Amino acid sequence: MYSFSNDYSEGAHPIILERLSSTNMDQTDVYGDDSYSAHAAELIRAACGREDAEVHFFLGGTQANFTIICAALRSYQGVYSSSLGHINTHEAGAIEHTGHKVLALSATAGKLTAAQIEESHLLYLNDPKREHWVQPKMVYVSHPTEVGTLYSRRELTELADVCRKYGLYLYLDGARLGYALASPGSDLTLKDIAQLCDAFYIGGTKCGALIGEAAVLLTPELKTDFHTIMKQNGAVLAKSRLLGLQFEALFTDNLYEKICRHGIDMAMCLKEGFAAKGLAVVAESFTNQQFPILPENMYRSLLPMYAMGSWEVYSNGTRAVRFCTSWATSEEQVGKLIRDIKSF
Amino acid sequence: MYSFSNDYSEGAHPIILERLSSTNMDQTDVYGDDSYSAHAAELIRAACGREDAEVHFFLGGTQANFTIICAALRSYQGVYSSSLGHINTHEAGAIEHTGHKVLALSATAGKLTAAQIEESHLLYLNDPKREHWVQPKMVYVSHPTEVGTLYSRRELTELADVCRKYGLYLYLDGARLGYALASPGSDLTLKDIAQLCDAFYIGGTKCGALIGEAAVLLTPELKTDFHTIMKQNGAVLAKSRLLGLQFEALFTDNLYEKICRHGIDMAMCLKEGFAAKGLAVVAESFTNQQFPILPENMYRSLLPMYAMGSWEVYSNGTRAVRFCTSWATSEEQVGKLIRDIKSF
Amino acid sequence: MYSFSNDYSEGAHPIILERLSSTNMDQTDVYGDDSYSAHAAELIRAACGREDAEVHFFLGGTQANFTIICAALRSYQGVYSSSLGHINTHEAGAIEHTGHKVLALSATAGKLTAAQIEESHLLYLNDPKREHWVQPKMVYVSHPTEVGTLYSRRELTELADVCRKYGLYLYLDGARLGYALASPGSDLTLKDIAQLCDAFYIGGTKCGALIGEAAVLLTPELKTDFHTIMKQNGAVLAKSRLLGLQFEALFTDNLYEKICRHGIDMAMCLKEGFAAKGLAVVAESFTNQQFPILPENMYRSLLPMYAMGSWEVYSNGTRAVRFCTSWATSEEQVGKLIRDIKSF
Amino acid sequence: MYSFSNDYSEGAHPIILERLSSTNMDQTDVYGDDSYSAHAAELIRAACGREDAEVHFFLGGTQANFTIICAALRSYQGVYSSSLGHINTHEAGAIEHTGHKVLALSATAGKLTAAQIEESHLLYLNDPKREHWVQPKMVYVSHPTEVGTLYSRRELTELADVCRKYGLYLYLDGARLGYALASPGSDLTLKDIAQLCDAFYIGGTKCGALIGEAAVLLTPELKTDFHTIMKQNGAVLAKSRLLGLQFEALFTDNLYEKICRHGIDMAMCLKEGFAAKGLAVVAESFTNQQFPILPENMYRSLLPMYAMGSWEVYSNGTRAVRFCTSWATSEEQVGKLIRDIKSF
Repeated sequence: MYSFSNDYSEGAHPIILERLSSTNMDQTDVYGDDSYSAHAAELIRAACGREDAEVHFFLGGTQANFTIICAALRSYQGVYSSSLGHINTHEAGAIEHTGHKVLALSATAGKLTAAQIEESHLLYLNDPKREHWVQPKMVYVSHPTEVGTLYSRRELTELADVCRKYGLYLYLDGARLGYALASPGSDLTLKDIAQLCDAFYIGGTKCGALIGEAAVLLTPELKTDFHTIMKQNGAVLAKSRLLGLQFEALFTDNLYEKICRHGIDMAMCLKEGFAAKGLAVVAESFTNQQFPILPENMYRSLLPMYAMGSWEVYSNGTRAVRFCTSWATSEEQVGKLIRDIKSF
Repeated sequence: MYSFSNDYSEGAHPIILERLSSTNMDQTDVYGDDSYSAHAAELIRAACGREDAEVHFFLGGTQANFTIICAALRSYQGVYSSSLGHINTHEAGAIEHTGHKVLALSATAGKLTAAQIEESHLLYLNDPKREHWVQPKMVYVSHPTEVGTLYSRRELTELADVCRKYGLYLYLDGARLGYALASPGSDLTLKDIAQLCDAFYIGGTKCGALIGEAAVLLTPELKTDFHTIMKQNGAVLAKSRLLGLQFEALFTDNLYEKICRHGIDMAMCLKEGFAAKGLAVVAESFTNQQFPILPENMYRSLLPMYAMGSWEVYSNGTRAVRFCTSWATSEEQVGKLIRDIKSF
Repeated sequence: MYSFSNDYSEGAHPIILERLSSTNMDQTDVYGDDSYSAHAAELIRAACGREDAEVHFFLGGTQANFTIICAALRSYQGVYSSSLGHINTHEAGAIEHTGHKVLALSATAGKLTAAQIEESHLLYLNDPKREHWVQPKMVYVSHPTEVGTLYSRRELTELADVCRKYGLYLYLDGARLGYALASPGSDLTLKDIAQLCDAFYIGGTKCGALIGEAAVLLTPELKTDFHTIMKQNGAVLAKSRLLGLQFEALFTDNLYEKICRHGIDMAMCLKEGFAAKGLAVVAESFTNQQFPILPENMYRSLLPMYAMGSWEVYSNGTRAVRFCTSWATSEEQVGKLIRDIKSF
Repeated sequence: MYSFSNDYSEGAHPIILERLSSTNMDQTDVYGDDSYSAHAAELIRAACGREDAEVHFFLGGTQANFTIICAALRSYQGVYSSSLGHINTHEAGAIEHTGHKVLALSATAGKLTAAQIEESHLLYLNDPKREHWVQPKMVYVSHPTEVGTLYSRRELTELADVCRKYGLYLYLDGARLGYALASPGSDLTLKDIAQLCDAFYIGGTKCGALIGEAAVLLTPELKTDFHTIMKQNGAVLAKSRLLGLQFEALFTDNLYEKICRHGIDMAMCLKEGFAAKGLAVVAESFTNQQFPILPENMYRSLLPMYAMGSWEVYSNGTRAVRFCTSWATSEEQVGKLIRDIKSF
């Protein structure tokens, strides 16, 4: 039995584990003041091409999202998100728990468009009773999106433009950012993102780390007292070395992109295999999540051998399924899966 | 330079690191459903003598505190705490951020007493305008306390009795619980605590783990939908194996108490050394935090060799200092420090 | 210039003002303990046919909504509402400010249906990752709805049935309840509502009072410590007599329904006038809000004489407009408006 | 039986009631846009000598306090208050409900001092771990205080100075401000307050209005989107004319101070009467709350004739009692009470 269920079934990339071991008995400073965290932040700033960026390490994506969003918004402000956005669906109302409305908009291939933001925002601005509405103040996008699609450089630039035009923050959830950066379908670099967004986070958990995400804050007003905001939200780690060490390793010798590229290569093999079999997909994905639509009997026959995510069941006897690859995916198992599908 | 600043300067106990390494490429279930977490929970239930306990793993103490307190209280309810309590001082208002008042009471040797709770609570109950007051609903205690002192079995029993009498929850913050259990000054066992409290957590971060705390929920109404509450507060880890594996190791072969006993042994050596030198202490501590009061020139002479915490400066030219030991403390450095003090 | 903009342009019904004047210098108890409030509550319980009901007076609808919803829900729970629901649109995120997600569903003629709730709720219940979702716990309906439509006795009974089936609270926002009860289009009585809902409020502000709404709590768990919850939300009035006196007057001699019937009569005159002119409507309304669709030039010609609400502008050169009547609407002005439309 | 229990036992000053009656059937704009509110705001700005002030009307003091404090503070910031401060005691945790810690300091005669704020704030600023603390950002004072005492011009100026020095907001709760302004013991004018504070509110409920308080915002950053913040907190009244009309009346012909002076005159009579009898007081008060300490048998003998507040019971057989006068207090009853005490 092999699992393609998600990209966090295994532990950490071996280089990371090795770093944790070799430094284990060193005494370091704590609560974010350790030298590993400082060095990791420096490496990330360099990779982003933004010496002015503030880098903070979080323990998970939900925590990063609600802490950053809560830090950015005043009590009556809300955040635009695609209706599929992680903050709108799978965070148990964490954003609302901090007091803010998620202003859900319909998604096209998992994405928001600049035109859609402008249209929604004009509705707000032109409403004579807008003082009784939640004030939109931020746009949340996921890259890759929840269905594995990618924003192009042009699409994100247009979103950034509309945000600047209306005084909205642009925040990018990069839980799987490594797979976007390594994807053949992307023309958007880390430096682009760091130019276009007000804040974003670089996912570690799904991209080779044992635990952790690196938030990059660019707009000055988001930086004020951010460490205290993190503390209040349970996001300050006593042994902050744990996070610093991992991101130091990931941003040394380009490890982050390198190991994610393996995940992408595996996903592209699957994509090809599904196409060769003539299977439709939910959305064209060039990232590590593939969503083929399988005949129900094919799904049933694979089930004893492969764990995978059931995405949606259709009335015509087919089922959309999510296959996830990662830095840790076995080449051998991918080959076997493709053969099993081919021979079905 | 050697640090006695705190008990989280090093990484994890080697046995834990080894477990993380040896299981690293196994595929496991996620979000708390992995077998390691299940097994760790079982071991903890057994150690507590409470098969009915629900065990959940958190990433840090602040997160455990605000999630459990927020889960237990309705919007208008508050929690009694000593004014020194961690939730009242060093959590950046995390409890208030979830909407609840910390009802601070004065501490005696860092502790709350049953009589004090009863007196305060009767003031509330007898106030004709009590409907305009925050309703007290929980008592928060730290064991060991923030100044290293310990509740006796009798003291905690009395607190539990007064809590039951008035319908208050008793919640124990065990960030350093291992050092309490291993202390020669304690007659309170883990099983006692699990009988007397409605909820508590077993500290990992300061007691040998790389990261993590194990919350033990005993009272049924605290258990409802707790996983969702954790998720909403950013406390659900995708790779939950990381926490499960560590607590599995800590509760196998009594590792938890065993390694904390080393910390205690080291602290008792220091205690003896301070006493031999005739130094007063802030409070008599039988745990891994020692608070001697040093003449300022002694403090200055130690400063280049030892990191330690400056606790309070007195007008008579002395200074209370915190020395922390842990599972990782070097016997050699303890010996050296005692000699340096002796020969001062 | 005469205003049909809303149903709160004038002060209070004269009987109410007179009661305030005649009792003005009496000394009464405060914070809800005055005898007028007690008597008003008694009258309302009788009108509802529910001796077990708890009645509390609020200062406004938004305040009633967020206080009741916040009292009913635990932190991770949400409330289903039509996307047009007042709590989803015009309360500046008050529900989210108390920490709860509004789970917006599409509206049919302004209403939610039992089938729709069941379908949505089954999606939640059947989701294997539902522990990561907001847990739906309440259904919010407005009666009349925001577009002036009404739930039939059968429709509300079906909603109540589905709520009981799934353990959801049913909460009814009766900001304009008087107009529903007085409407020829309604077969739903106050007693029905008090049988079917877990909580609701009887609107005063829009139905003849100077200020205030009367909340009726039926389900026992919603009643616990409710006065303290109100206090915490700024809803406890020192001079509570102000609210008690008004609702005492409104529920004496059936004043509430009587004066609202005038508003309905006026609205039905308008409705007939619009129909006679052949004007389409946004939704068939038998309440005090009428939404005819006017040719733009008719709208422009009325504008200097009548204030009214512009609801929506259509691309075909027409515009939906809201005309509101009330207990205070001038018969003469209604006649004049109908003539002006007829002769256009 | 006559009540000296509080200053809100009666309705409104007759002039106010008359204004409500005479304007009752006028149609006005709503949600704060009515001409009465605009005029009232203008009159208040003039009385304050601050043309730049923003004036907003609230329904009660608790609502004004939590809305203004929540508008001013970021999530991790707190507010200094005397431990007797209304926000720290009698608002059921409303401030904490909006997420903020009340940083309680001991009171001297009900007041905070500039020296005390500076000392507390330096403790915070000098703490090396201050990033883990709640950040103090506001000072809350009541004038008159909860025990009837008054800040002098010099005391409030010193507080304002220390606030500016450390970037803290100074906020004054004027629930009984009219009695302070009319007091012979005060050298602090409304114009002084409007120069020294960043925000304050002028109490109506206890000073002759039927309902309502007028908040005055001076510092620009407190004004941003304040109407929306009010809406989110349930503080925007549909029939805002109700509040506008009252404050228009109160700030016409100096009615506010004039009617409060009657309350003060009555209180000074009581004060003299108590002194003549040789009764000690809790604190020297020149406002409408008097706190004499009565022998228990005197208290018992007065109880059937006068309602009053029992403040504190002492072990020596005496009891502190609160007598409240107001604009509505009967001269005759005051005379009778004094005679009854004298002849005891």
